[in-house]
Amino acid sequence: MFVDLTGLTESARKMLEGKNFVFVATVNPDGTPQVTPTWVDTDGKFVLINTAVGRVKQRNLKKNPNVALAITDQSNPYNLVVIRGKVVDQLTGRVAEEHIDKMAKKYRGIDKYPNRSPGEQRVILKIEPTRVISR
Amino acid sequence: MFVDLTGLTESARKMLEGKNFVFVATVNPDGTPQVTPTWVDTDGKFVLINTAVGRVKQRNLKKNPNVALAITDQSNPYNLVVIRGKVVDQLTGRVAEEHIDKMAKKYRGIDKYPNRSPGEQRVILKIEPTRVISR
Repeated sequence: MFVDLTGLTESARKMLEGKNFVFVATVNPDGTPQVTPTWVDTDGKFVLINTAVGRVKQRNLKKNPNVALAITDQSNPYNLVVIRGKVVDQLTGRVAEEHIDKMAKKYRGIDKYPNRSPGEQRVILKIEPTRVISR
Repeated sequence: MFVDLTGLTESARKMLEGKNFVFVATVNPDGTPQVTPTWVDTDGKFVLINTAVGRVKQRNLKKNPNVALAITDQSNPYNLVVIRGKVVDQLTGRVAEEHIDKMAKKYRGIDKYPNRSPGEQRVILKIEPTRVISR
């Protein structure tokens, strides 16, 4: 086990850059935990998650920006990275709409994200890692 | 999406019975979320997780029994079950020691769990599902 307090490690970056799912844990307003898997991206410093405005995790993270992430390697589930962090920004508009298409390309090899609901607004959750554990 | 409030659905049971990992989210005493993947089992009614006494999730769930679980199918990560629930019991002793060997058999095909630390005490977290979502 390796704990890093200075940001994303090389192994964490590789896991985030791979076609792996991240399990995102947040805290509901009533103090209970919430967890869902999603696609993930990184710019090398921040963890970037693209969701829709109004989803449970997005609303929770507006109120309480603390987040925990667990990522295992699709090809070896015993290869694990756990990240604790804080949402430092929520980006909407063109940058978020283009970013979900980039994610569709990464994970599904298609140019356009196909699962938009009518009126859906995408949002990038920009997460600053405060603690990274690799196993 | 299918939401069930009466207990484990057939699809949830199947996911728990398969060799899938469950991502377990708890809340730390400081109100931040915590998440880790682990093996999982079910008796058909409760979700059973076997951990060691003193681990973060075990300590958190002693203080705050609310838990959220997300399980995806190893062979299709888009097949998802999310379970919210409460730890209704923590079982230690022989039942928990034998249960971790059963888990080693299920996931790794071996008779004895090989990763015990000296003095480690196993514990079964018995989770009552209060909300089950399948997608």
